[in-house]
Amino acid sequence: MTLGKVIGTVWATRKDDQLIGMKLQLVQELDVDGTLKSRFVVAVDSVGAGVGETVLFAQGSSARQTDLTRDKPVDAVITAIVDKLDIPGQTE
Amino acid sequence: MTLGKVIGTVWATRKDDQLIGMKLQLVQELDVDGTLKSRFVVAVDSVGAGVGETVLFAQGSSARQTDLTRDKPVDAVITAIVDKLDIPGQTE
Amino acid sequence: MTLGKVIGTVWATRKDDQLIGMKLQLVQELDVDGTLKSRFVVAVDSVGAGVGETVLFAQGSSARQTDLTRDKPVDAVITAIVDKLDIPGQTE
Amino acid sequence: MTLGKVIGTVWATRKDDQLIGMKLQLVQELDVDGTLKSRFVVAVDSVGAGVGETVLFAQGSSARQTDLTRDKPVDAVITAIVDKLDIPGQTE
Amino acid sequence: MTLGKVIGTVWATRKDDQLIGMKLQLVQELDVDGTLKSRFVVAVDSVGAGVGETVLFAQGSSARQTDLTRDKPVDAVITAIVDKLDIPGQTE
Repeated sequence: MTLGKVIGTVWATRKDDQLIGMKLQLVQELDVDGTLKSRFVVAVDSVGAGVGETVLFAQGSSARQTDLTRDKPVDAVITAIVDKLDIPGQTE
Repeated sequence: MTLGKVIGTVWATRKDDQLIGMKLQLVQELDVDGTLKSRFVVAVDSVGAGVGETVLFAQGSSARQTDLTRDKPVDAVITAIVDKLDIPGQTE
Repeated sequence: MTLGKVIGTVWATRKDDQLIGMKLQLVQELDVDGTLKSRFVVAVDSVGAGVGETVLFAQGSSARQTDLTRDKPVDAVITAIVDKLDIPGQTE
Repeated sequence: MTLGKVIGTVWATRKDDQLIGMKLQLVQELDVDGTLKSRFVVAVDSVGAGVGETVLFAQGSSARQTDLTRDKPVDAVITAIVDKLDIPGQTE
Repeated sequence: MTLGKVIGTVWATRKDDQLIGMKLQLVQELDVDGTLKSRFVVAVDSVGAGVGETVLFAQGSSARQTDLTRDKPVDAVITAIVDKLDIPGQTE
């Protein structure tokens, strides 16, 4: 999975029917020290993550293994809200 | 999914039979601030997106989860036309 | 799919039995303006593309959705020969 | 598979039910000479790898082919703890 | 598929049971002119490739389409030993 931060939401009226009702979140990748990387994805939110929260997201076919996304044209899904990273030797 | 902008269309007469009738759009990746990135893909259009529109596209096996692309040799599909990005703290 | 140019052929005698009889083409990625990028793949040719031709290729599990490549250990397949790119505002 | 080093653990209380009980390890990619690369993933641990150990991890749908991760929304899994790399001509 | 060169072997005693008996080779990517690229993978060897040989490897779910790797947590497999690249206009 990849570490990211929810930075916003995508609004789209015209879309594949299978995406109706899904919350599409902009998730920017995070480095282990908490700094934002330039890469981001648009991920379906399956855990109620809000803007500003640190999350884990899964990509590829693994993104279709949640109740919400099964068999849907979705290649990124938020699967967890991160409480903290425990990195021995690093002061957070 | 990935954020992109439709910049053109690909014309191909000789192709795998399963691609016949599909519209193949050139989609250039967008940054969250709306600037074009250098990376682009050729995606099948399942939502009627025109040149200049901002879209979401899915990649990999997830690109085969629309009615149009199921079981086809397609690894990118446009699944939504973006109305707007709602990014708190960013003036668009 | 990805835009590329066929630049050569790979010869391999010792290989997985499932690859026997497949033409393995070296395909270098192209930018939208026609310049060659540094990245390239070795793709199975399902449409009779020759050296010098501009093609589309599919990657990942989608590369196994042609008659030639189904259930084979193939992660890239040429699916179309490009006639032209129609990019409004760009002089080709 | 990819070579990496376990550098820490991710704690997440709110997550997809299918992730409950899984140990989520931060794994930073390694170069062949043992230096850390900037890229890292969060991988499920299926072999009891501890912080500081050199491991192999599988990504994508292949990450769901262990008893622990089958049909789960997991796109990276640690599958081996590396004893050593045998690279002729390189002094480790 | 991707062009690479076998540069060594990975030894791992503690690993997922499904990897027992598989030879894990370090494969460094090659450029079309034969120079080594910085990226490398650890691939299961299904064709008996030795150190120093130029090979093709498949990645992702396609890496599980050989007799040796089917349904295993393997995301890269060597599928061919390259005899030569035939690139018109390039002197090798």
